[in-house]
Amino acid sequence: MSSPSLSPFSLSCPLKAEKPPKNNLIVRNEAKKQTKEAKLIKQLEKQKQQDTADGENLEQSQNKKGRAYTVSVALPGSVLDNAQSTELRTYLAGQIARACVVFCVDEIVVFDEQGEDVKSVEGEFKGVGKKGHACIQLARILQYLECPQYLRKWFFPKHKDLQYAGLLNPLDSPHHMRIDDESEYREGIVLDRPIKQGKGSLVNCGMRKDVRIDKQLQSGLRVTVKLSKTQSPESKICKGAVVAPHLPRTEAGLYWGYSVRLASCLSAVFTESPYDEGYDLTIGTSERGSSVDQTTLSPFKHLLVVFGGLQGLEASVDTDQNLEVTDPSVLFDLYLNTCPDQGSRTIRTEEAILVSMAGLRQKITAAFASNGSLNN
Amino acid sequence: MSSPSLSPFSLSCPLKAEKPPKNNLIVRNEAKKQTKEAKLIKQLEKQKQQDTADGENLEQSQNKKGRAYTVSVALPGSVLDNAQSTELRTYLAGQIARACVVFCVDEIVVFDEQGEDVKSVEGEFKGVGKKGHACIQLARILQYLECPQYLRKWFFPKHKDLQYAGLLNPLDSPHHMRIDDESEYREGIVLDRPIKQGKGSLVNCGMRKDVRIDKQLQSGLRVTVKLSKTQSPESKICKGAVVAPHLPRTEAGLYWGYSVRLASCLSAVFTESPYDEGYDLTIGTSERGSSVDQTTLSPFKHLLVVFGGLQGLEASVDTDQNLEVTDPSVLFDLYLNTCPDQGSRTIRTEEAILVSMAGLRQKITAAFASNGSLNN
Ligand SMILES: C[S@@+](CC[C@H](N)C(=O)[O-])C[C@H]1O[C@@H](n2cnc3c(N)ncnc32)[C@H](O)[C@@H]1O
Ligand SMILES: C[S@@+](CC[C@H](N)C(=O)[O-])C[C@H]1O[C@@H](n2cnc3c(N)ncnc32)[C@H](O)[C@@H]1O
Repeated sequence: MSSPSLSPFSLSCPLKAEKPPKNNLIVRNEAKKQTKEAKLIKQLEKQKQQDTADGENLEQSQNKKGRAYTVSVALPGSVLDNAQSTELRTYLAGQIARACVVFCVDEIVVFDEQGEDVKSVEGEFKGVGKKGHACIQLARILQYLECPQYLRKWFFPKHKDLQYAGLLNPLDSPHHMRIDDESEYREGIVLDRPIKQGKGSLVNCGMRKDVRIDKQLQSGLRVTVKLSKTQSPESKICKGAVVAPHLPRTEAGLYWGYSVRLASCLSAVFTESPYDEGYDLTIGTSERGSSVDQTTLSPFKHLLVVFGGLQGLEASVDTDQNLEVTDPSVLFDLYLNTCPDQGSRTIRTEEAILVSMAGLRQKITAAFASNGSLNN
Repeated sequence: MSSPSLSPFSLSCPLKAEKPPKNNLIVRNEAKKQTKEAKLIKQLEKQKQQDTADGENLEQSQNKKGRAYTVSVALPGSVLDNAQSTELRTYLAGQIARACVVFCVDEIVVFDEQGEDVKSVEGEFKGVGKKGHACIQLARILQYLECPQYLRKWFFPKHKDLQYAGLLNPLDSPHHMRIDDESEYREGIVLDRPIKQGKGSLVNCGMRKDVRIDKQLQSGLRVTVKLSKTQSPESKICKGAVVAPHLPRTEAGLYWGYSVRLASCLSAVFTESPYDEGYDLTIGTSERGSSVDQTTLSPFKHLLVVFGGLQGLEASVDTDQNLEVTDPSVLFDLYLNTCPDQGSRTIRTEEAILVSMAGLRQKITAAFASNGSLNN
């Protein structure tokens, strides 16, 4: 197994990597302001992604356990505005998170279909409200739910958007470990605890012991840690190494949660892909699409499945000033009706995610099975 | 097209037919008490079902538009107890209703997996509570949602179980007509309005005009009406005929809502089938089932898909005193994992309905396509 060598370059991963950072939105915005640092990080990232790409090809042929491809889901934040109370607004966000987790979605993109420039919103947000800043609230709740429970107190200080977080159903994904669960990988936070120069850093991974990692990292960073195979039971500390957040997926085939990305309009969903090559298979969903039953998928690296809001993807296309088309279907490789003969006049977006991903699941597996690299 | 001839026998349909009545629970319980009437009705029903069965066979070969088969879904009422607030309890019931409607489910069976004898509960119920009588509340909300809006004031007087009905998302199914919608069929209520002896009854079908049907029926009954093709625009009244509630499905292939049935335990789901022949294809669902991907379905008349609650179908089997098995899989023709490689440790029942029915939808269509009687 070729685990990509851990050069200092890999340290950028937790901040921005193949998968965008999982720190909360505010953290990401602040990081952006530090432009000098940001530039450096970008350089390091490129290097890292190259390393990773090489590594993935190797793994794919050597290790059938890993999953090389990614699945992204995009939807407009405006879906929250269909909820009938502030509690249900929160619950709806939770339904979306769970639907994505059930189908092992790696990235959720929340796009604005109302023409406000979400990206300019930094620092202080106005908090929960029945209407407005739906994109930011949805993104925040998605990030909150994705974060392992033991890390939430660090990354999610009290916030009005999270006022009803107690109503959210847990994601119960494999990276949400309980304190005594055994796992090769764990998510953690770099601690602000002095340790001898050159001896790395301490990380809280939600276990009874802290983990010492080989690299010295800025405290407060969220990191993915690979725990060493051999640990001494007497030691007060565990040993581990920081790895790229995609490693649990690419090496071990584990589902490791999703990253969250905001897009200021529908077209930015495509153009601001975190993957250098972009998405190589894009699917739009609509009751006016062609039947999913007659569709087969070819193998892909990065799949993107896009959902519309109350008014469908037509509305998202209409408000996007970068798009001159009116027919959303031309934007996608496939434009699919994932529920032919539906018994309700409309399927709600949160339902459509479960229905559509259930319809696509077997086709995705089949795509890779016929390629010989995965079993059905 | 052979529409079954409307003998007086068919009048029993609205009360209890191939499809159980859609009047509310209390109405049904009261009807049961009138045992004399009930016996008569039962006789008439048998006759009617025979007529219908003959009719269906004819239709199936003559009319490809109709759908001859039915789909039933069963789940324990205890799922409501997983909700974290009384509002969310209501919302959850609505999610279940919508999931079933999206996939054109004809019957929803709510079974008790807690060993109380629900069937003995008659007349006055204790109303909404965070815990308890989950089965009845779920059944009531399902019935409420299924009932076209314009009939609700008649069939659903104020009730604590429906306190948060305002939060429910509408089903938007084809039989929920708006006042000016044109449709061959409509649901209505027989009015308590005098009309000359032998001239039939008046029915409110939610249109601007009332409908005069050919038969004289007890006022307050919910009926399915087939409107005459030719109507005179000058007349203050429309003309129509009462038909069996399954006709919109079997003749026109329309989805016409679901009936709701309470079962006092899991085994009663099977033994108290409203279909004389019972269910001829039964599917249990579980993450421990075999993969749905390797499954094909053969044509059936009455499909039953059963879901478990928080503890799975094992718990439902455990509390059922009629069942000596411990392994639920032996109860079903197929025991299916409808979401192999799920990314969450548990899929909630309300999610599992959408996911499972999405996985089965194409297989159901395919079963009948290979039979030559339906196109894929
Ligand atoms: C409430 S629906 C949009 C309905 C809107 N009136 C329209 O005509 O598109 C919200 C989203 O759910 C998804 N959706 C709904 N029904 C679907 C179907 N049958 N197949 C695929 N996607 C569907 C689509 O992404 C759609 O934009
Ligand atoms: C919360 S789950 C039950 C989980 C329970 N711990 C178990 O092991 O069965 C509730 C219901 O959802 C359905 N379900 C959940 N995951 C499923 C899957 N992968 N395939 C089919 N049905 C599933 C089953 O009907 C199950 O009883």
